[in-house]
Amino acid sequence: MHILITSGGTTEPIDDVRGITNFATGKLGKILAEQFLATNHQVVLLAGLTALVPDNHPNLQIIRISNVDSLAIAMNQWLPKINVCVHTMAVSDYTPVYMTDLETVEKTQDIQSLLTRQNTEHKISSQETYQVLFLKKTPKIIASIKNLNPDIILIGFKLMVDVSDAQLIETARASLYKNNADYILANDLTTISETQHKGLLISQHHIQSADTKQQIAQLIVSKSEEAYDKRNHRGNR
Amino acid sequence: MHILITSGGTTEPIDDVRGITNFATGKLGKILAEQFLATNHQVVLLAGLTALVPDNHPNLQIIRISNVDSLAIAMNQWLPKINVCVHTMAVSDYTPVYMTDLETVEKTQDIQSLLTRQNTEHKISSQETYQVLFLKKTPKIIASIKNLNPDIILIGFKLMVDVSDAQLIETARASLYKNNADYILANDLTTISETQHKGLLISQHHIQSADTKQQIAQLIVSKSEEAYDKRNHRGNR
Repeated sequence: MHILITSGGTTEPIDDVRGITNFATGKLGKILAEQFLATNHQVVLLAGLTALVPDNHPNLQIIRISNVDSLAIAMNQWLPKINVCVHTMAVSDYTPVYMTDLETVEKTQDIQSLLTRQNTEHKISSQETYQVLFLKKTPKIIASIKNLNPDIILIGFKLMVDVSDAQLIETARASLYKNNADYILANDLTTISETQHKGLLISQHHIQSADTKQQIAQLIVSKSEEAYDKRNHRGNR
Repeated sequence: MHILITSGGTTEPIDDVRGITNFATGKLGKILAEQFLATNHQVVLLAGLTALVPDNHPNLQIIRISNVDSLAIAMNQWLPKINVCVHTMAVSDYTPVYMTDLETVEKTQDIQSLLTRQNTEHKISSQETYQVLFLKKTPKIIASIKNLNPDIILIGFKLMVDVSDAQLIETARASLYKNNADYILANDLTTISETQHKGLLISQHHIQSADTKQQIAQLIVSKSEEAYDKRNHRGNR
């Protein structure tokens, strides 16, 4: 199969020297890529700038991704050629629009007018005691995947923080339907550490659990193969 | 000599999954550490979470630094034992105070009152089209170094973007006096690439130039040794 894995996090620049970043090491994406490679699949890894990546491998192509825009471009390019997409990347929800000092915001009657401004400086001054950063929602990458390739097997990720299993499952199921995903791997930051990574792989009717990154990766590889075989079998009838 | 090098960038958390980060690879800090080690000095490297670091070495201690607060704590602890401090780290100028949606800001009469609020959620909702992030200036770490150890030889860094040499030198000299530094390495992002890194090592009366990270590191090592010998010789009279 041809696999596309996204891993690490995106960074949206504020200016030339600063940005808003999503925390993500890329460890799980690396293990996923290694396990797909070990079972003889072709892997394209779209990895954030500081994400850990596997060693070179003849069936592995690594492309570094900076921000949401560059992720969207890479997805547009690759998805039509892909059988399975595992979208683990922590994608920025918001991107900077304009940064200014507090006094300017206080003096502006129509605050929405600030959204039409842009910073022209390369490095925003750090003289003021307070700054105000206006941010705009980025397009949801996961929502576009099945549009770009309706035949793809899509495994999305949902990271929450300190919620109950019931909440985690409910939110993951909502994401499953909304994004037309085949599976959502739901995980909670409070149960991720150096030695464990609890995850629930959720489909329309099933839930399977894993306790480590290795187990999560194994589960995703085997479910991807299963879904691909099933889909191809159906296609041949 | 006992050397303290700071490298990479700090990250100030917005919530548990996002932060504002300063772009810095840590490459120069790594080369600096290696060159100080090669000339038999003891090195403590305070490195940002994603900064590149040298291989293990018996005279090298690496401490990972997340945000400005943790940098300040490490500096307080280490500086009294240090002869030379090379402060290359891209330290966050601002840290998040409070993030809220645009409508709340528009409806708030006294915008300063928002600075007293705090986000209690672990992961700020990404429902709203626009968000507003209020930021507060962080304490200037470089300004505290000579207070913590007046005998230290201090080499600061000044990064600017697309300015003239004259502007770069003027700004670096201002930083030299303000922070009581012995040298400031002034550099411009537009003259830094994979193969070059232009830098001006500026002291009260002199300027020396370098074209690569290796040359910058060599210059800093030799000037540090010279300043240390001079200071100790004077101290012995």
